[in-house]
Amino acid sequence: MTPPPDGPLSDEADAGLLGPGWADSPAASATSDVAYLRALLDAEAALTRAQAALGLAPAQAAEAVTRAADPARFCPSALARRARGGGNPVIPLVEDLTRAVGEEYGPYVHRGATSQDIMDTATMLVAVRTLDLVLADLDRVGEALARSAAEHRGTVMPGRTLTQHAVPTTFGLKAAGWRSLVLDARDRIARVRDTLPVQLGGAAGTLAAFSAYGAEDATALVAAYARELGLCEPLLPWHTLRTPIADLAGCLAFAVGALGKVAVDVLVLSRTEIAELAEGGGGGSSAMPHKTNPVRSTLIAAAARRAPQLAATLYGSLAAEDERPPGAWHAEWEPLRELLRLVGGAARDAVELTEGLRVDADAMRAHLHLTRGLIVSERLSAELAPVLGRARAKALLTELARRSFTEGRGLGELLAEQPESQGVDLDELTDPARYEGAAAALTDRALERR
Amino acid sequence: MTPPPDGPLSDEADAGLLGPGWADSPAASATSDVAYLRALLDAEAALTRAQAALGLAPAQAAEAVTRAADPARFCPSALARRARGGGNPVIPLVEDLTRAVGEEYGPYVHRGATSQDIMDTATMLVAVRTLDLVLADLDRVGEALARSAAEHRGTVMPGRTLTQHAVPTTFGLKAAGWRSLVLDARDRIARVRDTLPVQLGGAAGTLAAFSAYGAEDATALVAAYARELGLCEPLLPWHTLRTPIADLAGCLAFAVGALGKVAVDVLVLSRTEIAELAEGGGGGSSAMPHKTNPVRSTLIAAAARRAPQLAATLYGSLAAEDERPPGAWHAEWEPLRELLRLVGGAARDAVELTEGLRVDADAMRAHLHLTRGLIVSERLSAELAPVLGRARAKALLTELARRSFTEGRGLGELLAEQPESQGVDLDELTDPARYEGAAAALTDRALERR
Amino acid sequence: MTPPPDGPLSDEADAGLLGPGWADSPAASATSDVAYLRALLDAEAALTRAQAALGLAPAQAAEAVTRAADPARFCPSALARRARGGGNPVIPLVEDLTRAVGEEYGPYVHRGATSQDIMDTATMLVAVRTLDLVLADLDRVGEALARSAAEHRGTVMPGRTLTQHAVPTTFGLKAAGWRSLVLDARDRIARVRDTLPVQLGGAAGTLAAFSAYGAEDATALVAAYARELGLCEPLLPWHTLRTPIADLAGCLAFAVGALGKVAVDVLVLSRTEIAELAEGGGGGSSAMPHKTNPVRSTLIAAAARRAPQLAATLYGSLAAEDERPPGAWHAEWEPLRELLRLVGGAARDAVELTEGLRVDADAMRAHLHLTRGLIVSERLSAELAPVLGRARAKALLTELARRSFTEGRGLGELLAEQPESQGVDLDELTDPARYEGAAAALTDRALERR
Amino acid sequence: MTPPPDGPLSDEADAGLLGPGWADSPAASATSDVAYLRALLDAEAALTRAQAALGLAPAQAAEAVTRAADPARFCPSALARRARGGGNPVIPLVEDLTRAVGEEYGPYVHRGATSQDIMDTATMLVAVRTLDLVLADLDRVGEALARSAAEHRGTVMPGRTLTQHAVPTTFGLKAAGWRSLVLDARDRIARVRDTLPVQLGGAAGTLAAFSAYGAEDATALVAAYARELGLCEPLLPWHTLRTPIADLAGCLAFAVGALGKVAVDVLVLSRTEIAELAEGGGGGSSAMPHKTNPVRSTLIAAAARRAPQLAATLYGSLAAEDERPPGAWHAEWEPLRELLRLVGGAARDAVELTEGLRVDADAMRAHLHLTRGLIVSERLSAELAPVLGRARAKALLTELARRSFTEGRGLGELLAEQPESQGVDLDELTDPARYEGAAAALTDRALERR
Repeated sequence: MTPPPDGPLSDEADAGLLGPGWADSPAASATSDVAYLRALLDAEAALTRAQAALGLAPAQAAEAVTRAADPARFCPSALARRARGGGNPVIPLVEDLTRAVGEEYGPYVHRGATSQDIMDTATMLVAVRTLDLVLADLDRVGEALARSAAEHRGTVMPGRTLTQHAVPTTFGLKAAGWRSLVLDARDRIARVRDTLPVQLGGAAGTLAAFSAYGAEDATALVAAYARELGLCEPLLPWHTLRTPIADLAGCLAFAVGALGKVAVDVLVLSRTEIAELAEGGGGGSSAMPHKTNPVRSTLIAAAARRAPQLAATLYGSLAAEDERPPGAWHAEWEPLRELLRLVGGAARDAVELTEGLRVDADAMRAHLHLTRGLIVSERLSAELAPVLGRARAKALLTELARRSFTEGRGLGELLAEQPESQGVDLDELTDPARYEGAAAALTDRALERR
Repeated sequence: MTPPPDGPLSDEADAGLLGPGWADSPAASATSDVAYLRALLDAEAALTRAQAALGLAPAQAAEAVTRAADPARFCPSALARRARGGGNPVIPLVEDLTRAVGEEYGPYVHRGATSQDIMDTATMLVAVRTLDLVLADLDRVGEALARSAAEHRGTVMPGRTLTQHAVPTTFGLKAAGWRSLVLDARDRIARVRDTLPVQLGGAAGTLAAFSAYGAEDATALVAAYARELGLCEPLLPWHTLRTPIADLAGCLAFAVGALGKVAVDVLVLSRTEIAELAEGGGGGSSAMPHKTNPVRSTLIAAAARRAPQLAATLYGSLAAEDERPPGAWHAEWEPLRELLRLVGGAARDAVELTEGLRVDADAMRAHLHLTRGLIVSERLSAELAPVLGRARAKALLTELARRSFTEGRGLGELLAEQPESQGVDLDELTDPARYEGAAAALTDRALERR
Repeated sequence: MTPPPDGPLSDEADAGLLGPGWADSPAASATSDVAYLRALLDAEAALTRAQAALGLAPAQAAEAVTRAADPARFCPSALARRARGGGNPVIPLVEDLTRAVGEEYGPYVHRGATSQDIMDTATMLVAVRTLDLVLADLDRVGEALARSAAEHRGTVMPGRTLTQHAVPTTFGLKAAGWRSLVLDARDRIARVRDTLPVQLGGAAGTLAAFSAYGAEDATALVAAYARELGLCEPLLPWHTLRTPIADLAGCLAFAVGALGKVAVDVLVLSRTEIAELAEGGGGGSSAMPHKTNPVRSTLIAAAARRAPQLAATLYGSLAAEDERPPGAWHAEWEPLRELLRLVGGAARDAVELTEGLRVDADAMRAHLHLTRGLIVSERLSAELAPVLGRARAKALLTELARRSFTEGRGLGELLAEQPESQGVDLDELTDPARYEGAAAALTDRALERR
Repeated sequence: MTPPPDGPLSDEADAGLLGPGWADSPAASATSDVAYLRALLDAEAALTRAQAALGLAPAQAAEAVTRAADPARFCPSALARRARGGGNPVIPLVEDLTRAVGEEYGPYVHRGATSQDIMDTATMLVAVRTLDLVLADLDRVGEALARSAAEHRGTVMPGRTLTQHAVPTTFGLKAAGWRSLVLDARDRIARVRDTLPVQLGGAAGTLAAFSAYGAEDATALVAAYARELGLCEPLLPWHTLRTPIADLAGCLAFAVGALGKVAVDVLVLSRTEIAELAEGGGGGSSAMPHKTNPVRSTLIAAAARRAPQLAATLYGSLAAEDERPPGAWHAEWEPLRELLRLVGGAARDAVELTEGLRVDADAMRAHLHLTRGLIVSERLSAELAPVLGRARAKALLTELARRSFTEGRGLGELLAEQPESQGVDLDELTDPARYEGAAAALTDRALERR
């Protein structure tokens, strides 16, 4: 059976119509129902293989289960429907898989395990597979930003605080800062990715059924299971010790937020009045032919508004009572998938955004003069204080700032008229492009980080 | 083209595998990608019809668009993929719909509208359709709880506070309280449902394009549009005045929380050690043949853990800048759908839960004696104080409570040995079943509410 | 004992150092520890008075408790410390109040009540008192915005979508929209405010102890209690039926979001490059003498980022198990206070913001030309289509838009060179100020709302 | 001036009346307004000292500022009030500190810095000081749990899943699991604590003013500043690269959740009907003399309900536009303090909870028999399958489980009557205490972790 490539969906299936931020991305495929189904089947097959590896099941059983565990043979819709009964999809899947394996080796399917062993392990597989995609995209984003930072190491632009021009900065420093945050995200994701464990505990986390089925040292089975799947071996079954889920929540919320920082900056700097940046391929509008919207940034920014609350739900599930909680566990599944998707989609969009970003260095430099020299008033304060005395310097600048605003004249020009400023190199002092501080040095330092 | 009823999904379509709380429910169908597609098409067709009604388009155009607006002719997956470009699915849908309508009347498709007009209107249609399902289910829940409350008006059971037996209550009062909360949810949903408006503002909310296309009074078009769809006419275009979305967030979060209260109570009272309640059809376990789990309550409780954070994202989108925000709007779509699904699924589960709930009145009554009379210590304090003086009464009860615990004897028995309690009707005073206060009167009063 | 007006605080007391958004506001006073203490004492005194009104306590007891219930006689710090033992401040307060009342009438303090009765009732008192302040401020905001909308009914400015100029709008319509959202907030707060109930249920919500202390109809006591405090009489004790708390969460999150919309718009329009709006009294900077920051908007925007998550915690507490939950209730107290403060502070800031807002109508009009006519391309599409045919019109405009951008010439100018546009009134068609659609009519309509 | 130890508060100061979970804790002192004031002053003094160390200020200036930076000389209430103007408390504090330092060295106060440099650095100081307290408490919790786990290595109890008895586990394994989660929290906090950096960037993060004031290599000043305060040197100014804040959010939400897991388990196991655990010093009730409530667990559970949403707000602030955002930064201050307090308070409560926890091993063992043998049905399935065949074994057990429930007889007893079970050692097989699987081995392994 081959799925219809673009065919209509059944009335209850979603194809991402409401999720332009993640639909059609590699992460979307890696987190689809079919991807989860595949991971659930991988988890079941690996369990039988691990038992076979320890002599607890015949090698043929492992082969039979592995062979039967083909996602094309199972129907997510039907499983979803039947998942209602017991509250999770593993119960009907085990029924179907057992039947598919056949009478002889069917009994080796899921033997000794609990639904949560399989569900949690599959979730870790999906997470690892998605995070690998994300890490590759973050690497590309980091590289694109490194190029931007290097190229614009000396591109002076207004620094903006609380929406107002403050003092000059450089676009190089800004891009280096973005990169630094993206590398922080990459490091956090990579660290968590490398710790994600299999789950294996049996009904209440004691591994008792595996012993009942003959395991002398059931903890060895956990190690074998981890080896089969390339995941870590946990110190303890973690049915209600949800460190891996919480760690994922943290690194994913971080990553969306980091990309969100880039996005909100691009949104500001793309504004019609500012136009220092533009997305390479802006999106159109259904009503206005002329518009090129910063769509990539918009979608990343939308993800950044959602991720923290999804992470909150996952952190909230740490407080999971008993050996399996009635609700806290079930509340994790969809938010974690959503987070993986949002990060995956945002990383994809960030690649396009940063690789295609158009920088208008002339606009940046031109804007330095919008405040008629006020953007260097901090410098003038510092430089004039030793000459005029601190109080007099401050009073003078405040007065000239007022006049600059009301008279529409430049601060440098007004200052030049002051007797006190004779002998001061006003050209140097009032040139915004010469007040970039340590921006270049900071950029260089930041770019040394790998 | 008929969708394959149970066929395999494409790799990126979801069928609810991770959502046993809502999959396969009426609300799932009402909020699927296909349901949104249908609503988007309904919104487009109604717009052309409204223009025709005002003489701004030929009647044939309205007919042609309405005929073409058949969801079976459009592919959600492909639309989802193309939605990336402009950041929303309306842009490609308008292209496809225009083509489907044909050369003559194609120009009347989406005329004067902006994507957000259609997207927001479609969202309101989906919301109304889903809320109607939810309201019907909440009515059933309310009726089932009314029956339980009436039946168990006199079923005395331990009241529990901070996990400990406090004083007696009745199951009737508890069920009446649940019903009261469910009716509160119903009222809030019904109120919001009846206010949901169409969206129509054009590119920046001024209705300007409609005037350009010939409308003398463009606001009349909004009224006609509302009539076509059975939604309300808004006072203003609400592209960035998100009252309807925030109101939905509030009533939906309320409803899930209200059902969540029922669920967490059932979970407590279903515990193996308590077993005063049991779900009618408990769910099985993949590992333990004997278990009947409170699955309906578990899934409702899981929804109640998620809904508040989804609502938070929606409330957060109130702060939407400009005439259309870059992100805040896009961040609403999936959380709102999720909330509708969670409420729809929880309401369905609550119907099954409350209609099938098994009450063990004997267990309730038996548990009144678990604390050996301490559950009426409050009453004894009140009744003995006038006889013994307040201080002496308190000291005596504290001492007897201690002895009751260490000696394993009943408080009534110990009290009977006290010389001071001669002449007091201890049988009456220490019978938990006679200390139910105004439980019955409160139950009656609560049941009068319709 | 008079509190030191500005004296140093003990090491554990907070004066709002981290909360410039609410510190020193009327709402801050209305929600302080002392305000809660006052409300707790009011709740205790009213309970004894209600009992006296029904003949369940001597009138002298009511007087004695009312007299003793003076917040100046109690120490919040010490109560806070002792609240740890039982987990709430009512327990030590009852001890202190009983002692303060004296031996004769002390026994009438808190008689029959549970801590939650007092805590919840006090919370409702604090809420009502704070909401009244908020409502007054929202009225002022609404009036200021009505004035702005009327004054700028014809002030055309760029409408902005996804950060880009779209089509023209007016500042009048924008201000009318802000007002509409603020009135929505006002209506929601007013509605909730008028439903807030007293809490009275006794240990497990059955009113049993009041009967034990002699009440023939304990529900009459609830009514009397409500009358004493000017709050509503609840249908049922609501210890774990948290409708009032959830309703507060909703209307408060709504209100902060509504004000947040105003704030984020002001922030955008105050940007150095845009400068269409400025706060009346912008805040200074510690480093840059020239800066006037939009501080009021900044603080409101900060509140809008926090409120949704606080509301989420409150909605989450709906799922409160048993007759008093171990945690869900306790988790409400501080988030609800925070929300009240954030709304109170934001409303205060919004008064200053809207009453002092400076509108630069010239800048608005000037910006209409920033896109060299592209801001009316929608209109040109509509108007040229009948003349040129739809396809040709679109192709022409797309081409001219490209040329406009690359050649730096106006769309009108380029269009005038086209043979096809002879006979079209290009001056009218390309004047952004004449493409404001129904903005004025919508503004008028919105201003009719009271 | 000495603060009044227990004196009344001004009407706007809070002493923790609504926060029994953290009031009067070491963390409360470490995060109070006075503590923040102290940290702000420490940050200012260290900045001048760092400048002196590099020869940018006279040594006497450093001494003068350090001497003046005494929190007792400043009034948090007044600063809070004046913080409104510019939107942060640093602006008025710099004024007061400059005045306190006097005319000669006043100009060296805050020289070259921006408010955010000081505010962020102070926040890091407060965080480090609080986390050190938390780490010490988590160590104590870990030790208490290690003792419990070792002592109860063989204490068999029911494992509970979805509220129902599943298979046996041990209290030792449960305590070892709690400890594992607490150590995870400790590790995450310790890791973040050791990375917290000073903030120093000047107005827009370029360090420009420091150069204007004479620094040849302004980045050296950052290093010197970090040395003065014992914080890390950041790679870049992080005004809008909020890694430290997000990292704090993550580890704090994790820690509260980890303690929350312990708390919710204790709450379940303390229930009147279960009573396998009891808090050492349960809290009393204002109404019921006999009650001992699990108050420590209740307060920890309440914190666990709040922390995730506070963390969400902090993660949301990662998307901070420009060089200083109008709102995202301001929205961090109070939620971060709340999180530090909740963690600090929860850790304190967890020390008391775990050090004083009373374990009723007899009750645990007795409860193993509540399901009349069904708790070992998983084992029987496993063991009987090879004897009877899998299908027959399952059918038999299902039937006997039904009879066990309806007849009120034990599964072992019913099984003994079956002819098929002759020769099977039913005593061994049906003894719950002999079906603890690898619980002991897992406990040992977990306890090896340091």
